[in-house]
Amino acid sequence: MKSSLPKVLHPIAGLPMAQRVINTAQSLDQAASNQGAVHVVIGHGAEKVQTSLKGDDLRWYLQEEQLGTGHAVQQALPGLEGQSGVTLILYGDVPLTRKETLAKLMQEVQDKDLVLLTLDMDDPTGYGRIVRSDDGLVQAIVEHKDATPEQHTITEINTGIMAVKTELLAEWLPKLSNDNAQQEYYLTDLVEMAVSDGKRVSATQPDYAWEVEGVNSRVQLAALERIYQQVQAEELLINGVTLMDPARIDIRGNVQCGTDVTIDVNVILEGNVVIENDVIIESNCIIKDSIIRKGTHIKANSMIDESEVGESCDIGPFARLRPGTKLAAKAKIGNFVETKKANIGEGSKVNHLSYVGDAEIGSGVNIGAGTITCNYDGVNKFKTEIEDGVFIGSNTCLVAPVKVGKLGTTGAGSVITKEVGEGELAIARGRQKNISTWKRPTKQS
Amino acid sequence: MKSSLPKVLHPIAGLPMAQRVINTAQSLDQAASNQGAVHVVIGHGAEKVQTSLKGDDLRWYLQEEQLGTGHAVQQALPGLEGQSGVTLILYGDVPLTRKETLAKLMQEVQDKDLVLLTLDMDDPTGYGRIVRSDDGLVQAIVEHKDATPEQHTITEINTGIMAVKTELLAEWLPKLSNDNAQQEYYLTDLVEMAVSDGKRVSATQPDYAWEVEGVNSRVQLAALERIYQQVQAEELLINGVTLMDPARIDIRGNVQCGTDVTIDVNVILEGNVVIENDVIIESNCIIKDSIIRKGTHIKANSMIDESEVGESCDIGPFARLRPGTKLAAKAKIGNFVETKKANIGEGSKVNHLSYVGDAEIGSGVNIGAGTITCNYDGVNKFKTEIEDGVFIGSNTCLVAPVKVGKLGTTGAGSVITKEVGEGELAIARGRQKNISTWKRPTKQS
Amino acid sequence: MKSSLPKVLHPIAGLPMAQRVINTAQSLDQAASNQGAVHVVIGHGAEKVQTSLKGDDLRWYLQEEQLGTGHAVQQALPGLEGQSGVTLILYGDVPLTRKETLAKLMQEVQDKDLVLLTLDMDDPTGYGRIVRSDDGLVQAIVEHKDATPEQHTITEINTGIMAVKTELLAEWLPKLSNDNAQQEYYLTDLVEMAVSDGKRVSATQPDYAWEVEGVNSRVQLAALERIYQQVQAEELLINGVTLMDPARIDIRGNVQCGTDVTIDVNVILEGNVVIENDVIIESNCIIKDSIIRKGTHIKANSMIDESEVGESCDIGPFARLRPGTKLAAKAKIGNFVETKKANIGEGSKVNHLSYVGDAEIGSGVNIGAGTITCNYDGVNKFKTEIEDGVFIGSNTCLVAPVKVGKLGTTGAGSVITKEVGEGELAIARGRQKNISTWKRPTKQS
Repeated sequence: MKSSLPKVLHPIAGLPMAQRVINTAQSLDQAASNQGAVHVVIGHGAEKVQTSLKGDDLRWYLQEEQLGTGHAVQQALPGLEGQSGVTLILYGDVPLTRKETLAKLMQEVQDKDLVLLTLDMDDPTGYGRIVRSDDGLVQAIVEHKDATPEQHTITEINTGIMAVKTELLAEWLPKLSNDNAQQEYYLTDLVEMAVSDGKRVSATQPDYAWEVEGVNSRVQLAALERIYQQVQAEELLINGVTLMDPARIDIRGNVQCGTDVTIDVNVILEGNVVIENDVIIESNCIIKDSIIRKGTHIKANSMIDESEVGESCDIGPFARLRPGTKLAAKAKIGNFVETKKANIGEGSKVNHLSYVGDAEIGSGVNIGAGTITCNYDGVNKFKTEIEDGVFIGSNTCLVAPVKVGKLGTTGAGSVITKEVGEGELAIARGRQKNISTWKRPTKQS
Repeated sequence: MKSSLPKVLHPIAGLPMAQRVINTAQSLDQAASNQGAVHVVIGHGAEKVQTSLKGDDLRWYLQEEQLGTGHAVQQALPGLEGQSGVTLILYGDVPLTRKETLAKLMQEVQDKDLVLLTLDMDDPTGYGRIVRSDDGLVQAIVEHKDATPEQHTITEINTGIMAVKTELLAEWLPKLSNDNAQQEYYLTDLVEMAVSDGKRVSATQPDYAWEVEGVNSRVQLAALERIYQQVQAEELLINGVTLMDPARIDIRGNVQCGTDVTIDVNVILEGNVVIENDVIIESNCIIKDSIIRKGTHIKANSMIDESEVGESCDIGPFARLRPGTKLAAKAKIGNFVETKKANIGEGSKVNHLSYVGDAEIGSGVNIGAGTITCNYDGVNKFKTEIEDGVFIGSNTCLVAPVKVGKLGTTGAGSVITKEVGEGELAIARGRQKNISTWKRPTKQS
Repeated sequence: MKSSLPKVLHPIAGLPMAQRVINTAQSLDQAASNQGAVHVVIGHGAEKVQTSLKGDDLRWYLQEEQLGTGHAVQQALPGLEGQSGVTLILYGDVPLTRKETLAKLMQEVQDKDLVLLTLDMDDPTGYGRIVRSDDGLVQAIVEHKDATPEQHTITEINTGIMAVKTELLAEWLPKLSNDNAQQEYYLTDLVEMAVSDGKRVSATQPDYAWEVEGVNSRVQLAALERIYQQVQAEELLINGVTLMDPARIDIRGNVQCGTDVTIDVNVILEGNVVIENDVIIESNCIIKDSIIRKGTHIKANSMIDESEVGESCDIGPFARLRPGTKLAAKAKIGNFVETKKANIGEGSKVNHLSYVGDAEIGSGVNIGAGTITCNYDGVNKFKTEIEDGVFIGSNTCLVAPVKVGKLGTTGAGSVITKEVGEGELAIARGRQKNISTWKRPTKQS
């Protein structure tokens, strides 16, 4: 990866690869797995990996030397010994195996002892082939270089992912040998042990090839990212969302979308995003960890982060809603407007070129173009309160803490430092003087 | 479609699918068709469909039950009886058939009685096959399940689109039977009737397979949208437009482009857009229902809606021209500037962070950064007039109705509420006081 | 091309096609080529081509009539006669041949007399075939229409690019004949002359087919642009850059990227761009001729042109850094902010809706929202100086030339026209008056 970040922490669709593996594992029915614990074997960048990954009941094992896949799993032996149930063996760099596929492995292993996840490939050259007996059980995994000509025609290959009865795994792991050319301990040797012990080995396959793709370079990571984005886009389409271009949407997290939502090109959705029915999101919007309620229209080039946008709001274009923005229904945030920690009431409008931060704004308020809530004195932040029906004239500075009472008005270009009472007009600006003797500046040399 | 919008109203390239079909039909030489009327049979969401679609001489028929394609066309029978000429049978969910293809059908039917639009498919499995006699005429359409092994090898399939002599259609329609497994009335049965009546049935094919693709899901809609965008992009390229990425342009309407126009990535053109020669449009611009005159440069991230941009103008980046903006030649609208209902004269500049709405601006005017036309008092909108050669200082509020006469100047930070005479300087701001005993705020707990 | 721009000047990845050819030629070891001069034969739009292309020691030849490839090279004969060494024959509309491929030609020709660049094609229909003798040397180029059935099976075709010993080229060129159907002089006839003179002709191949693709239409140009962008994207990935979508990045110039750089979708890099390690560039940014130092985060929709951004800066979203912006470490430029010719010191912040031009800003400065440096009086530009630790209140106009001394403060909404001394507070605004008898405007008819 040419990276200082351990490979398994490189994100795919917004989550570190290994985190995706942990999340999928933990989404399985816990009872089916080994007490639900996830045993994580870490090596390269172990400390960073351990502090970055989150999950319930994660158990950590350090693999100090990298001596093969079998050696890696051996590290977890202390956590497996004496356990019953089944152990799923997954890989931190194979991020996209679906829950349904793992469930299938868990189901299949019930009346077997070891189940491999395998794949049919058009061109299996270089991969270990799955040799099955007449009854369909797996007899062996034969490495490409060791395969007979007949075995070379087998197109079913081993992906490395497997489910094993934990008792057997704990029994077999210590017997793995590194008596081979590479002097490594191979997990695939488990199959030979199982067969020679008279245990039943079978194989099952994922619905999609991308579920078992591993990542060894940024080229592969980028390719897999694209595949997964396409998968997510298709899911949205199937669930009743219109996408103007399924190849130009990026979903990096969990998105819940209602029906008749329209999403234009180059939209990015990050974190936990809820989009209710009949929402329109125009091109190039970025929405992160936010809720967009029914019927709202988000115009092009808007950015929304940790905010809640009410029903039938009108946002953008070029609006930026920063964390803590909460808009009631029918609010309107226009172009070149930034909001932050702002509650904005029903039908209120901030249409142009404004900064509204640390503000409580009532309903039916009109905030004129160029308005700024001066919420910061260099060290402290203060709040601006604007009550229902207020009209803030253009280019008003509201020097917080300050309050404008119900139906109050401020004159354009005013700097408001004192409370404005209910229904009052506040003006704070110089008087206009026209100077008719004025000479325009001339070009200086 | 998982939608509350009737399927045929889902837009493709900016127009409801069925609207595209109507438009193409009406673009044909009217004389050739049945008096030029378009007979529209509606069923699901009939009312919404009828109020949404526009066209000359549309005649509406309600199909109350959905009993097959033949049943649908039967509803239009009252409009066909007693008519001569030819009837084209089209589908509201097959949106992209080209005018040239329909003209070919109309031409072909002249010395025939019924002409099918057919398609050669690599894999025709599941489709009705076209059985031709030695003279090339169509003998029958055989459904896949009824086909003989030999007929299974036929790759020519029926698309459903056809042209029929209207007199014959009116004669045959009442004879359609639903005596089949699905108890539906099939339009394809017309072929059998024609053949048994000794009429001449032939078939013609579209130039492109996408012309006969139907839409039954948002996945298909999105795929067809992409195909059509590609088609439109290629047309632009062929006509002398440079596209930085033909896969990243969206044209949703009618675009007329001169030569040596350059369009960068992720541009969206909507409605009726005219772009004259030598225009440069940078990335991520959205232009809707506007005219961009020769030699103008639209910089990245600009949005232009219902506006006219003169020759050799310089727009953006991050400019937003709202409806009613009209720029004379060589005008300049810079970053974070919004205009609306604004006439802006030759060579005038609004370079930074301004809102110019309801304004008449002469030529050679310089509008300083942060200028705002305060056009709204909460209930009324007023006009700002700025004559030739005016210099508006930064952060000026122009409280409309207000006028700045020829060569007038306003001082930075002024709120202009009264007319400024020709050549006058108007200042409206407080005097500067420096307070040397000032203590900075300290952190509050 | 349907263009008033000569074909070879159409840009690919930001450079005119012919300029790419010249640059690649000049990147070769000069000693190997004919004294390092590049002899450019121009025809269509000769003058425009000559003034547009740059290079060391370019020599120009005008081909007044277009009488074939041989005729074109004949024009350069005066520059070749009496020269030793090797001449590479390249084409202005075949822009992407790699230096490595040309070096291979130069190497291969050392013990030969003429070396062709050829290509293996799956479908060579229409192309001139390379006929080789048993020893692998080239015997002839046979045009498709003249080829025997056996020769039609040859998949190696001629690309037109070649390396020839200059002495031989100078000897052969005058002997080319136009005694053929098209009455043109063909360069490929050189092969026949070489073979009949007993000279050694061989052929070598490029690593990639796109290296020898020529451009004859905007469709082809767009296709080749996309191929080349993909090539460049893959190079970045291999060198340790994460790209969220390799199909959505445009590199138009020379980009040097450190490792662990992350570039999100739809970023455009133009000219000479240096991006140091650990930089994050969010979606839709455009960076041109700039340096971005280690650890800086460029948020979405930012544009940076001829600027230097220091380490660990925080830029955007919606920031625009215009030429001459220089940011020290940890500076912060926020949304809807424009900078131009501005030095901004360590840790200083311009967070919202501001214009900072022609400014020297110290370290630890906070520039409030809506601040504008009024640097232009209509004819002259002036400088604003802001010393370390200054706090500029929101909506301040700084009327340049003006200075705010160390730790000075300006009140919100002030127009600063005079120097503010060290530690002073400057206020320049009207006093607030609250008018309780105010009547709101009513709707005018």
